[in-house]
Amino acid sequence: MTGELRVLPLPGIPEIEEGDDLAALLVDAAAGTGGLAEHDVLVVAQKVVSKEEGRVIRLDEVEPSAEARELAGEEDPRRVEVILRESRRVVRSRPPLVIAETPHGFVCASAGVDSSNAKGPGTVVLLPLDPDASASRLRERIGELTGHEVAVVVSDSFGRAWRTGTTDVALGVAGMTALLDLRGTRDAVGYELHATQIAVADEVAGAAELVMGKVDGVPAAIVRGLHPSGDGRGSDLVMPAERDLFR
Amino acid sequence: MTGELRVLPLPGIPEIEEGDDLAALLVDAAAGTGGLAEHDVLVVAQKVVSKEEGRVIRLDEVEPSAEARELAGEEDPRRVEVILRESRRVVRSRPPLVIAETPHGFVCASAGVDSSNAKGPGTVVLLPLDPDASASRLRERIGELTGHEVAVVVSDSFGRAWRTGTTDVALGVAGMTALLDLRGTRDAVGYELHATQIAVADEVAGAAELVMGKVDGVPAAIVRGLHPSGDGRGSDLVMPAERDLFR
Repeated sequence: MTGELRVLPLPGIPEIEEGDDLAALLVDAAAGTGGLAEHDVLVVAQKVVSKEEGRVIRLDEVEPSAEARELAGEEDPRRVEVILRESRRVVRSRPPLVIAETPHGFVCASAGVDSSNAKGPGTVVLLPLDPDASASRLRERIGELTGHEVAVVVSDSFGRAWRTGTTDVALGVAGMTALLDLRGTRDAVGYELHATQIAVADEVAGAAELVMGKVDGVPAAIVRGLHPSGDGRGSDLVMPAERDLFR
Repeated sequence: MTGELRVLPLPGIPEIEEGDDLAALLVDAAAGTGGLAEHDVLVVAQKVVSKEEGRVIRLDEVEPSAEARELAGEEDPRRVEVILRESRRVVRSRPPLVIAETPHGFVCASAGVDSSNAKGPGTVVLLPLDPDASASRLRERIGELTGHEVAVVVSDSFGRAWRTGTTDVALGVAGMTALLDLRGTRDAVGYELHATQIAVADEVAGAAELVMGKVDGVPAAIVRGLHPSGDGRGSDLVMPAERDLFR
């Protein structure tokens, strides 16, 4: 049985620039809470990962297409142009809102292109090209720096069908199961769980969001006590269209 | 800024029968972890709340309709009949799977009707009639028993559009904000957050799920350190159809 979990915010992470050693900055920030420990899960907001990877666009270098101008309504068409470039397809739109499917298969507002907590006015931050690779790279580098095996979740805030508000979800995962498959196990009264798969990495991302906060500028948190294992990926959490009864 | 959160499982809760004093049993279980404290958030699985409220159906008392027989495929049509009775409408179906909208407005598999961890073979458990009222009642009774003001979340595992697996969400809420509205506030670099609303009660439910576990029979957890305030409702998290771009 799982014991107690602790969810620890990591304040004090400086503004991230392309090429920074984000893993080292996370390790430093964690030192303020006693340091990263073996089997911690480190949840890192997508935005700082993207900044480290240079996934930032200056809007004054973007020429909007006719389609972008139409979808933008009264908003900045250059931002919508970036959203279209980051999209495999537009799922829904109601100017200026665009819900898009990204090349990763994520369905989210603005294809994950975000103006908040960006690199100042006139810039937007894109999703990492490969969030699972980002998570693996951070995990490996943290192992080098600390000698500890940690799991890493790269998180972002997504809206959902049917429900209001965003919850944080796992875009990238390394060092832990992303989707816990209980099919075939039995419940406490012996009933076989036929269809139960739990998106644990999304629940971990959401738990971390509770201490991170968009306003406070805390882009990372430790989830301790989960005893992560397995080698799940964020891509495990993307639902193939043909299996999705909820869309 | 939010500090550390702790998420504490509450094992040792006995099998719940209709009319039990669930609040008292939760208080007793919490004593094993040092007791409930002021401003704790108590997350309780819908299933034990439903059992306390007598929301259990014996399938041998159910006569399936023709529609239920058709939707059931090779599964038990009596179970599908109960699902149809608990549904405002069927959203999607692929026998034997039914996604339905409940009278509360929740969109979920089987209208929340569940055979796992039920009252033995041949029974199913329904959602509470009014999960917000259930949460308020538990919160009030816990206040009487302990003198502490706690928040209560009644949780269940829901599938989602676009993503695999379930995450736990808040069906009923009492004593805390369910949907945190940051619209109009500014981020760390001064950018105004236009559209940001966070489903904190869903993230709390998901965090608790990580320690509860479907297999272990731990139907409740404490989330400590959140400093809940406000008087949100689970119904705040139901998206009105006309605003939902994700469905």
